[in-house]
Amino acid sequence: MAGKAMLVVSAHSADFVWRAGGAIALHKKNGYRTKVVCLSFGERGESAKLWRKGEMTIEKVKAARKEEAERAADILGAEVEFLDLGDYPLRVPDEALMRLVDVYRELQPAFVLSHSQKDPYNFDHPLAMHVAQEARIIAQAEGHNPGQKVVGAPPVYAFEPHQTEQCEWMPNTFLDITEVWDTKRRAIECMAGQEHLWEYYTRVALQRGVQAKRNIGITAARDIQYAEGYQRITPAVTGELA
Amino acid sequence: MAGKAMLVVSAHSADFVWRAGGAIALHKKNGYRTKVVCLSFGERGESAKLWRKGEMTIEKVKAARKEEAERAADILGAEVEFLDLGDYPLRVPDEALMRLVDVYRELQPAFVLSHSQKDPYNFDHPLAMHVAQEARIIAQAEGHNPGQKVVGAPPVYAFEPHQTEQCEWMPNTFLDITEVWDTKRRAIECMAGQEHLWEYYTRVALQRGVQAKRNIGITAARDIQYAEGYQRITPAVTGELA
Amino acid sequence: MAGKAMLVVSAHSADFVWRAGGAIALHKKNGYRTKVVCLSFGERGESAKLWRKGEMTIEKVKAARKEEAERAADILGAEVEFLDLGDYPLRVPDEALMRLVDVYRELQPAFVLSHSQKDPYNFDHPLAMHVAQEARIIAQAEGHNPGQKVVGAPPVYAFEPHQTEQCEWMPNTFLDITEVWDTKRRAIECMAGQEHLWEYYTRVALQRGVQAKRNIGITAARDIQYAEGYQRITPAVTGELA
Amino acid sequence: MAGKAMLVVSAHSADFVWRAGGAIALHKKNGYRTKVVCLSFGERGESAKLWRKGEMTIEKVKAARKEEAERAADILGAEVEFLDLGDYPLRVPDEALMRLVDVYRELQPAFVLSHSQKDPYNFDHPLAMHVAQEARIIAQAEGHNPGQKVVGAPPVYAFEPHQTEQCEWMPNTFLDITEVWDTKRRAIECMAGQEHLWEYYTRVALQRGVQAKRNIGITAARDIQYAEGYQRITPAVTGELA
Amino acid sequence: MAGKAMLVVSAHSADFVWRAGGAIALHKKNGYRTKVVCLSFGERGESAKLWRKGEMTIEKVKAARKEEAERAADILGAEVEFLDLGDYPLRVPDEALMRLVDVYRELQPAFVLSHSQKDPYNFDHPLAMHVAQEARIIAQAEGHNPGQKVVGAPPVYAFEPHQTEQCEWMPNTFLDITEVWDTKRRAIECMAGQEHLWEYYTRVALQRGVQAKRNIGITAARDIQYAEGYQRITPAVTGELA
Amino acid sequence: MAGKAMLVVSAHSADFVWRAGGAIALHKKNGYRTKVVCLSFGERGESAKLWRKGEMTIEKVKAARKEEAERAADILGAEVEFLDLGDYPLRVPDEALMRLVDVYRELQPAFVLSHSQKDPYNFDHPLAMHVAQEARIIAQAEGHNPGQKVVGAPPVYAFEPHQTEQCEWMPNTFLDITEVWDTKRRAIECMAGQEHLWEYYTRVALQRGVQAKRNIGITAARDIQYAEGYQRITPAVTGELA
Repeated sequence: MAGKAMLVVSAHSADFVWRAGGAIALHKKNGYRTKVVCLSFGERGESAKLWRKGEMTIEKVKAARKEEAERAADILGAEVEFLDLGDYPLRVPDEALMRLVDVYRELQPAFVLSHSQKDPYNFDHPLAMHVAQEARIIAQAEGHNPGQKVVGAPPVYAFEPHQTEQCEWMPNTFLDITEVWDTKRRAIECMAGQEHLWEYYTRVALQRGVQAKRNIGITAARDIQYAEGYQRITPAVTGELA
Repeated sequence: MAGKAMLVVSAHSADFVWRAGGAIALHKKNGYRTKVVCLSFGERGESAKLWRKGEMTIEKVKAARKEEAERAADILGAEVEFLDLGDYPLRVPDEALMRLVDVYRELQPAFVLSHSQKDPYNFDHPLAMHVAQEARIIAQAEGHNPGQKVVGAPPVYAFEPHQTEQCEWMPNTFLDITEVWDTKRRAIECMAGQEHLWEYYTRVALQRGVQAKRNIGITAARDIQYAEGYQRITPAVTGELA
Repeated sequence: MAGKAMLVVSAHSADFVWRAGGAIALHKKNGYRTKVVCLSFGERGESAKLWRKGEMTIEKVKAARKEEAERAADILGAEVEFLDLGDYPLRVPDEALMRLVDVYRELQPAFVLSHSQKDPYNFDHPLAMHVAQEARIIAQAEGHNPGQKVVGAPPVYAFEPHQTEQCEWMPNTFLDITEVWDTKRRAIECMAGQEHLWEYYTRVALQRGVQAKRNIGITAARDIQYAEGYQRITPAVTGELA
Repeated sequence: MAGKAMLVVSAHSADFVWRAGGAIALHKKNGYRTKVVCLSFGERGESAKLWRKGEMTIEKVKAARKEEAERAADILGAEVEFLDLGDYPLRVPDEALMRLVDVYRELQPAFVLSHSQKDPYNFDHPLAMHVAQEARIIAQAEGHNPGQKVVGAPPVYAFEPHQTEQCEWMPNTFLDITEVWDTKRRAIECMAGQEHLWEYYTRVALQRGVQAKRNIGITAARDIQYAEGYQRITPAVTGELA
Repeated sequence: MAGKAMLVVSAHSADFVWRAGGAIALHKKNGYRTKVVCLSFGERGESAKLWRKGEMTIEKVKAARKEEAERAADILGAEVEFLDLGDYPLRVPDEALMRLVDVYRELQPAFVLSHSQKDPYNFDHPLAMHVAQEARIIAQAEGHNPGQKVVGAPPVYAFEPHQTEQCEWMPNTFLDITEVWDTKRRAIECMAGQEHLWEYYTRVALQRGVQAKRNIGITAARDIQYAEGYQRITPAVTGELA
Repeated sequence: MAGKAMLVVSAHSADFVWRAGGAIALHKKNGYRTKVVCLSFGERGESAKLWRKGEMTIEKVKAARKEEAERAADILGAEVEFLDLGDYPLRVPDEALMRLVDVYRELQPAFVLSHSQKDPYNFDHPLAMHVAQEARIIAQAEGHNPGQKVVGAPPVYAFEPHQTEQCEWMPNTFLDITEVWDTKRRAIECMAGQEHLWEYYTRVALQRGVQAKRNIGITAARDIQYAEGYQRITPAVTGELA
């Protein structure tokens, strides 16, 4: 039988690195198949540095962004699929939604990561999450492509947006990524076009590390240096509360 | 070294049975030390049937409620301590708060259960949760009784109130109590004074069982018949998201 | 002059039975014209049992679902109209919206029932409510098909979703359905494809009955066994507060 | 058997006039016994004009405020009881709470009116509502003064605060007070110390009148000129949804 | 270099007058270029009086509404552009969105005004705000029409809806419009088709004036008679907190 | 006449440094009188390092904390007053509240800074904010110590808590503290007992700096390196929206 898998739905081609790179590297290390679907390259709205180079076309920017994302995914140990739906604004036709349903059915992910449900700075982000959830629901439906194996109820998490409070995003889950931090940092450094964010997201990881430490308590043995924050959207089902 | 422990802070002497009886029985079975602190006996506000018997005094009602609670705790496998602070309204002086701090320090619970943070039908309930949280914070403070072992950061959960939506209570955690359901039902039946609630909370357990099953997905092997819903208040810190 | 009427906008062909069957039967009994519009048959996402029979096609499933819904509507005393817009995902083109506007204009409902405004388990549900509200607004516009009689401001209620708290649904209105419960139960039993939900929604009716009783107070004479919960979305206008 | 009654819990001695004067006059007209409990006179925080007269003492201000309130209550047809607990800040000892419980038991109100649950401009207001709710809960408890008749579950409404949106107050109920507007206006004019508010609350009544009209729809026959807005806090239990 | 500019995105052709007329007149007086984009004429849903005249066609209503809006804009000192997208329901194709992006790029507004983010009475309103925000985000993207000057981060404000509390709209900013009130009133009087709203919005301005006065405190010298309320959506960046 | 003043209400003796040190230094530089009221020394709950030294008493810890706070206040240019009310739990008797009212009356602050209104990690924090607001309201009352000059309506801001999202704190105002950052850092370094927080709050200032920059837009000339985030609680009243 196949092993466990995880799915990341990323609005633009760099989001999965800043926001879920640690989760990808950590679960890869723990034997998961890790897959990222990038809905767009972020070619219009998140490639300012490339556009300022001059002599640019949309195709050149997309190619550069794709190459960066592939290198980062490679470092993290993830497969990456690009749907090339355009950005600013992202629009997701039903054909693309159905492609995402196929990914769910084929991958059978144990959990899913995507954006916050609100983001006043970026409407592509909540749309990506909406689509990630809608595809999951359709993938559960027995009447969709009957005969295929339906998916169960993989937990859905919202990874950290840029300005958390404005996005009404609340981290109810901290993932300790200390042991894979170096890998995440190397993946981050693939994003040549957004170098100003390297230190920003390093500080994010340090802050979340301090907070994670506080949330296990000072009596806990575990040392945490770096963490990623997640908002779990779906309820947990468990046999123990500790 | 001592094993794990759990703490339940119950506003009235029956709340821990209806709302957390499954969690107590299950963790007891799994080797936990389980302790309940009842802030009051619910002698004024939750003993209507006893009062209707006639010839009643507040002391007789308290004695009857205490005896019921002790029998239920015995069945569930819990220690129970009564602070006898009065109900309708419950008032918690700082001395009682400090007694609760002592319990935290002595018990070192791995997690804590108490009421919802809002309850328009019963102001004693949110006060009990407030006190449970405040005592936890004080128990963490190194300057409180220096020399004692401080507590870490035990997760806090709100168990299910009577009218969940009015209480703005959201179950983000379902605990499968199928294997201890019979024990919980026997404990429930100790509550002779509130017989009208026996079937009510049996139905609650069945509904939460159906929902828990749905939240692990139809592809999951685990069969769940009965569950308890909890709202985890404090963030989780984890090394895996599945 | 015509009598009173009520309208139910149901995403899938069984929703109106589980969630508003009591309201339909009760108002029918009280002389209302009762009409249900089913936006889809729930053929892909809510017909698992049918699909597992084998030898199924989408048309067969739709026909089976239609037949079940018609029988249930017949028992409840409702007219039912099927828009056959597809499910998982439901999509509502403007033509369908305008058909719904026509229904409002023709029916002149005294109130409208539809789904909760949020449902993370089912995106078809909030869309149905959105469409029910949008059609109501258009039906109020004097410039839409001038010459037709516009509608007034029929109150809008959200009926009970499957997992209420996750849907942020709050029952601010309980409808006593004790006298029509047997009728509702018979309608429920038409839903052969979702037999696992019969007892679930029977328990829902019992729980809401207990809560309704509590909300009129123990001093009230009225005995309530079964109730349906509703969230009134629009304000009430009244001449008395009791 | 006694007729119906209503209860208003007013933080300061003028609040019941601005915020619930229409409800009092209307229900009085309809045969209700109407009672107001004023927790304080608003002598420190809501009597600016009186203080500016010079030669004032706290006792003189209280006497003046009491006299104004009594005249207004008389016009509206209400009994009024003053607990004289002080204002800015209002503090409510348990003895005062128990006096309010006695009022509930004696009055057996069909519904209760008090302040919004939040008010960043005035902390006395939400405290008054808290106390109104807490007293109601205690009055329901069979173990409180056994032998007395307990109260049922009278609906609780929050009347309109000064700056509604800041108070997170939402009018889900509009009361048509057109027929008693003149009476309310006369009662308002008793408040010589706050003349600047006369026109303010007349405009409030007009605005709520327009909104009430809109919420019954342009097709409704009822003409509404003046209304009061209320936020119903407790659920309704009903036999009809129209 | 060009002076400052402001942008108003109005769902229907009268909204900018009732809701932002004071802001337009005031900033015009202070040297701003002021531009309004009307997404529709409100020809179907907000022209009841015109339709009742008889002999009406959609084109005649649009012409009448356009003429009213142009006269009002003229009085206020605003340029106005009509996108004629239809109303009840408003639909905004991407071409219209891109036209709005062009307006942002050309105008380089210092701030933007549009509708509340929720309005259960009117779905065109939140859509207008959504589009106003989405266009702003696209206008910031360097990859959209590279070579054009991108826009900065103009603050976004929601102006006052008709029933504020139902719209969950909160005025966190009051604009003193006393000195331009006469101008606003004259603009309001251009709206012959909605005469019933003239006094309504005059009272709104008076109420907001009283509230604004209260929020600067009675010790402040500034006298405020009329104000408009706004909800600032985007954070402020400042060098001083007073 | 005296110049402008600002007031900070700090639950523990270090809070004003981490959370408002930049605002203090900046406004001091701009000519403000700056005053801090520390309700407690944080001697029990925020002095872990001191307690671990051994040979400690509560008086020694308080003295050490006081000395640190005074040095930090001196660097920032603030007066500091200690109410010594105890911590974990903080309790505020009405006498202390009245002392704070006196401070308001004497200082006549142009604005006030205190904690977030919710903090599940620390109940002393929201209590401090509550008291800061309640004292402000009392200081506005003409009947409190008649003859004294009342205060106006100084804006209230919540400064940044440790775990912002858990506290439901939203920064709607960013203060550029770049020019005083060195001063704030020196004040931070006075807190010898909490050295682990120096880098944490340096990173906070850097992150808020990046966000502030983003919220003025990339076209703005102003360069911002360090910022503090604030949640403005009270509405702004203004003559211009830009």
